[in-house]
Amino acid sequence: MSQAIISNVLGIFVVDQQAIIDKKLFNSHAEYEARQHYIAELKKKHKQASETHDLRPFLHLFKAPEFHNAFHERNIELTKQALKQSVTKDQLIIQAANSVADLDKIINQLAKRLREWYELYNPETSKAIEDHEKFIEAIIKKSKQELLQQFSVKQEMGAALEADDVHALMNLAHHTHELYRARQALEKYSEKLLKEIAPNLHAIAGTAIAAKLLMQAGSLERLSILPASTIQILGAEKAMFRHLTTKHARMPKYGILFQHPLIAKVPQQDRGKAARGLADKLALAAKVDRFKGKPLAAELIKDLEMRFGSWK
Amino acid sequence: MSQAIISNVLGIFVVDQQAIIDKKLFNSHAEYEARQHYIAELKKKHKQASETHDLRPFLHLFKAPEFHNAFHERNIELTKQALKQSVTKDQLIIQAANSVADLDKIINQLAKRLREWYELYNPETSKAIEDHEKFIEAIIKKSKQELLQQFSVKQEMGAALEADDVHALMNLAHHTHELYRARQALEKYSEKLLKEIAPNLHAIAGTAIAAKLLMQAGSLERLSILPASTIQILGAEKAMFRHLTTKHARMPKYGILFQHPLIAKVPQQDRGKAARGLADKLALAAKVDRFKGKPLAAELIKDLEMRFGSWK
Repeated sequence: MSQAIISNVLGIFVVDQQAIIDKKLFNSHAEYEARQHYIAELKKKHKQASETHDLRPFLHLFKAPEFHNAFHERNIELTKQALKQSVTKDQLIIQAANSVADLDKIINQLAKRLREWYELYNPETSKAIEDHEKFIEAIIKKSKQELLQQFSVKQEMGAALEADDVHALMNLAHHTHELYRARQALEKYSEKLLKEIAPNLHAIAGTAIAAKLLMQAGSLERLSILPASTIQILGAEKAMFRHLTTKHARMPKYGILFQHPLIAKVPQQDRGKAARGLADKLALAAKVDRFKGKPLAAELIKDLEMRFGSWK
Repeated sequence: MSQAIISNVLGIFVVDQQAIIDKKLFNSHAEYEARQHYIAELKKKHKQASETHDLRPFLHLFKAPEFHNAFHERNIELTKQALKQSVTKDQLIIQAANSVADLDKIINQLAKRLREWYELYNPETSKAIEDHEKFIEAIIKKSKQELLQQFSVKQEMGAALEADDVHALMNLAHHTHELYRARQALEKYSEKLLKEIAPNLHAIAGTAIAAKLLMQAGSLERLSILPASTIQILGAEKAMFRHLTTKHARMPKYGILFQHPLIAKVPQQDRGKAARGLADKLALAAKVDRFKGKPLAAELIKDLEMRFGSWK
């Protein structure tokens, strides 16, 4: 009767039709990973046995309940292991980029709230400083009197608040200011990771856009298989859908890529063309990054600059 | 010819038809505020003059351009002064309450984001701690290993992240945790102000509901003139509008008051009645607070407890 070598999640077995003749059970995940090595060993020991992947003729050998339990447990273990390994750096970039997007909205909301409140106290200064971050920095660093002097306001309209009232307001200002720093740290972290796992994509797109492209695509792997025409309009799904469902809406020219300095630089009528060119290079860069190919960003950027001029 | 004493924003004038005989110009806002005092003084000096509020016969005396400019300037000054004084403590409570409402949403958003991110690293712990605040505290205070041990997880699914990756995640966790403290400080501040300007309202409604009622009404003054039936459904404007515009939607029984412990305590079928009773007392409390009347919250609470039982 011919012998066969079969393997499953539990171990490697040398079998004939009636019984298991020899076996090597996996005692750890490492042994499972090294199964090829153990198969080779068993092959040496049982010269007449050959490996087969068709397990059906031998399934009856594994009917005992202890095998069932072992199968179940080992499968869960393998799934957990697979989950563990599915967390790649691009997933971390996506989390960081999502958090940055959240913080942008949150900071904006708190800054507006803070202005409304602060305007009861000192409306002139709030009106004089348009930028939210600069406004918050100013009110944290300088007193109302200093600020009124700075903007040469003589007759002020703000209420004279008690120290406790100002303190409550300033406490919120401090916390909002801290969130700017949190945002900065996250962006720095994203940049570090992007340079590590997608250096070509990052060199062409910059941190914010590269992170958003990964976020939209879901992973570097998925981004790398998207056609350039999809990358071009990534993030403009709403406009694309409007184009597909209504007659008068035009096809969008760009989504996330609209924020790229190249698009801002070229004249209005060339923007579609520039977005297409940029998407071509990004698609190529993503593929190279995914398979850890050689750096070619410099070359791709040179191509784009030849066609549309430098944007740096 | 009879003499008259007239006053305007510039000063007090003793006039006859032809000329200004005597005058007291206001040199400061304080003097303007004390105008009754100066009028009395001028009356003593010019016994035959009587005060009049009909300025029309004397308007030609103020035709000179220097008066026009002075009127304009003084009016702006008075408006600014009025704006300054319009900032009352209830406005500050409303700002603080709005900020608390914002922070609630913000913290929730960040906590969800944080969980999603942390679950790549340690999903078991995130699943085991449902409360956002406790979850964030746990991951700040304890390492992944400690937490896995605490929840007796043997075979973990989370990825082994590098120190830098964990650091970025923890940085966001720290900032989110800080926002809980900011929220707490704001609520304490609201409570202090409420006890000061609306002690009766606060005693019956509690900090969160009293602040929200003020926020909805816009000021203590406006809240004090609202009928009890409006206070009862304050915050349920959407449901009320639905009731008014569609046939099948019932009239709402409560808005903000739904969050009051009394409503939670009474059986379902008594909730409408309890909300009406509560709104009656709150309307009364708001009126008393507005005119700085005597404390009567204890009495009102006793009344409610007699009808619906204690909720404390």
